[in-house]
Amino acid sequence: MTTTIKDIGEIGLLNRLKKFMRHGQIDDDVAEIQSKRKNILINNDLLVEKIHFCESISNAKDIGWKCITTNISDLICSGSVKIISFSIGLVLPPSTTLKWVEELYEGMSEAIKEFGGEIIGGDCSCGETKMISITAIGEMNQPRLHKGNALPGDYLVSTGYHGLSRLGLALLKSEDLPSKEIISPKLFNESIQAHKRPYPALKALEALISCKPALMSWRAAGTDSSDGLIESIRGICQSSNCQAVLSKSSFLKHPDWPLNPDWDEWFLYGGEDYELILSLPKKWAKKLSKKLKTARIIGFTRKGKPQIFWDNLEEINIDRLKLFQHF
Amino acid sequence: MTTTIKDIGEIGLLNRLKKFMRHGQIDDDVAEIQSKRKNILINNDLLVEKIHFCESISNAKDIGWKCITTNISDLICSGSVKIISFSIGLVLPPSTTLKWVEELYEGMSEAIKEFGGEIIGGDCSCGETKMISITAIGEMNQPRLHKGNALPGDYLVSTGYHGLSRLGLALLKSEDLPSKEIISPKLFNESIQAHKRPYPALKALEALISCKPALMSWRAAGTDSSDGLIESIRGICQSSNCQAVLSKSSFLKHPDWPLNPDWDEWFLYGGEDYELILSLPKKWAKKLSKKLKTARIIGFTRKGKPQIFWDNLEEINIDRLKLFQHF
Repeated sequence: MTTTIKDIGEIGLLNRLKKFMRHGQIDDDVAEIQSKRKNILINNDLLVEKIHFCESISNAKDIGWKCITTNISDLICSGSVKIISFSIGLVLPPSTTLKWVEELYEGMSEAIKEFGGEIIGGDCSCGETKMISITAIGEMNQPRLHKGNALPGDYLVSTGYHGLSRLGLALLKSEDLPSKEIISPKLFNESIQAHKRPYPALKALEALISCKPALMSWRAAGTDSSDGLIESIRGICQSSNCQAVLSKSSFLKHPDWPLNPDWDEWFLYGGEDYELILSLPKKWAKKLSKKLKTARIIGFTRKGKPQIFWDNLEEINIDRLKLFQHF
Repeated sequence: MTTTIKDIGEIGLLNRLKKFMRHGQIDDDVAEIQSKRKNILINNDLLVEKIHFCESISNAKDIGWKCITTNISDLICSGSVKIISFSIGLVLPPSTTLKWVEELYEGMSEAIKEFGGEIIGGDCSCGETKMISITAIGEMNQPRLHKGNALPGDYLVSTGYHGLSRLGLALLKSEDLPSKEIISPKLFNESIQAHKRPYPALKALEALISCKPALMSWRAAGTDSSDGLIESIRGICQSSNCQAVLSKSSFLKHPDWPLNPDWDEWFLYGGEDYELILSLPKKWAKKLSKKLKTARIIGFTRKGKPQIFWDNLEEINIDRLKLFQHF
């Protein structure tokens, strides 16, 4: 018979989860953080079943990995290279199996081994729908990336591929593809991996830090492309009150990504990509694009009310960006 | 027509909530914390509709107050007198009215005005059931209260009344009372207030800090009585691996609390009380009970496997403590 969390109770469950957590932080509700710096960054993300994850296409380990890495990506795109800790809040139906919860924590632990940090505690409760609330804490470093830090005359930089996670989702759900292209085995596998096991751009942030021109200030704007490539640029334009002009031909596509323009939608708006989208002084952007193989200068910023254009001056319709609102 | 959050969308909702949050932390997902100390305390609590709150008996403002104060109580009973910040995660059905969300935040703001801290951001998502996830951060001070810090030979101290919140809940739900006593208007009002607007024991912690004997170390065990008076003592015994011997006559009861022993159940196990329950060196305990009008020495700790006794050596059955498990 499969053990459920109802069988072992709340205290039983917490005891089973102790092995995933820092010793000694489970008896008390409250956990300590000892940071080398006084300034820290904090991020809170909610993942709700059927909205942010779906058990028919992701197992508990993948969901655990994704919970942690989406939070890590938010810290990284704010400039934190040192991840400190995670606090986990779980709402679970009483029929949830202990195995499911343990596998969720195993997936979280795998991500933490890869990127750093530790689980320091949290809370759990029953509820009708599974819900995972993660609070992640990282050290604050230079540069402190904000969406609102862009200035007119910056270059916009993307640090890797886009669209793979959206393709992976379509493949996992057997959705129709944008056109009947043949998907190479390599693109197939990497897309599914991108969807199930997103990989935050920590190396890209380290490259950004290491190649700042010596006499330049740390001023840089950044976000991740978790809501989609164009949406992340819209966010920078909105927060920095400027315009973006993008060059479609400069984007880095996976070598096997279909060239058919029907596929641009997923590339530009697909979401759940975890690359850095940066707005940088030109010199810094050029140095980064030389240092990091997957970095590309994809456009520039200019004065004007927040809008995005292609370099043929065609405006990008921002209405379609409502796709990613959760209400 | 009443505006719902579906009408205004996620971005619309966040814009409306800006007024409750520190300026400039809403554009980015991540918030900064600047602490005067490097060591901070972090607490995460989940409140799920129909489990932790019920809209038929609490309005949105009361729920907001309670979300914040339950977290503050966890920080206080860990020794933090300085509350820094709150990050709020909300899961809401799309039919939730904007008015409800604004009143929730108004209640949170009222509690923050009373106890300190600020809202620094969070996340929101739709879902079938309302769920509120709060992450609270406080400065770490001396004493760092742990459940596991008790030593045999300590005095156990409680800092105030118990049972009022349970009585308030019964009155609000028109439940049968333990016996047909007459409830005074004063007890009636204070019980409903205790249930709807719990008031964390910040003043008791300040008294504890101010009256530590000069040459004594800061070693002290503590928790709050949010899960009930006896459950909090069980927690200290379990984590400190010791026994407690309690004197029933020493407990501080509200002057109008019925003396009929049928009412002891709610007093001892009612829960949602937010007093400090401390295990202290005798001298410190005596000084506290003199300094703080509502503090009482309610018993002592001794060696032995975790158990609780009355001073007539009758053992307290710990099985009934399962009442407060949420699965």
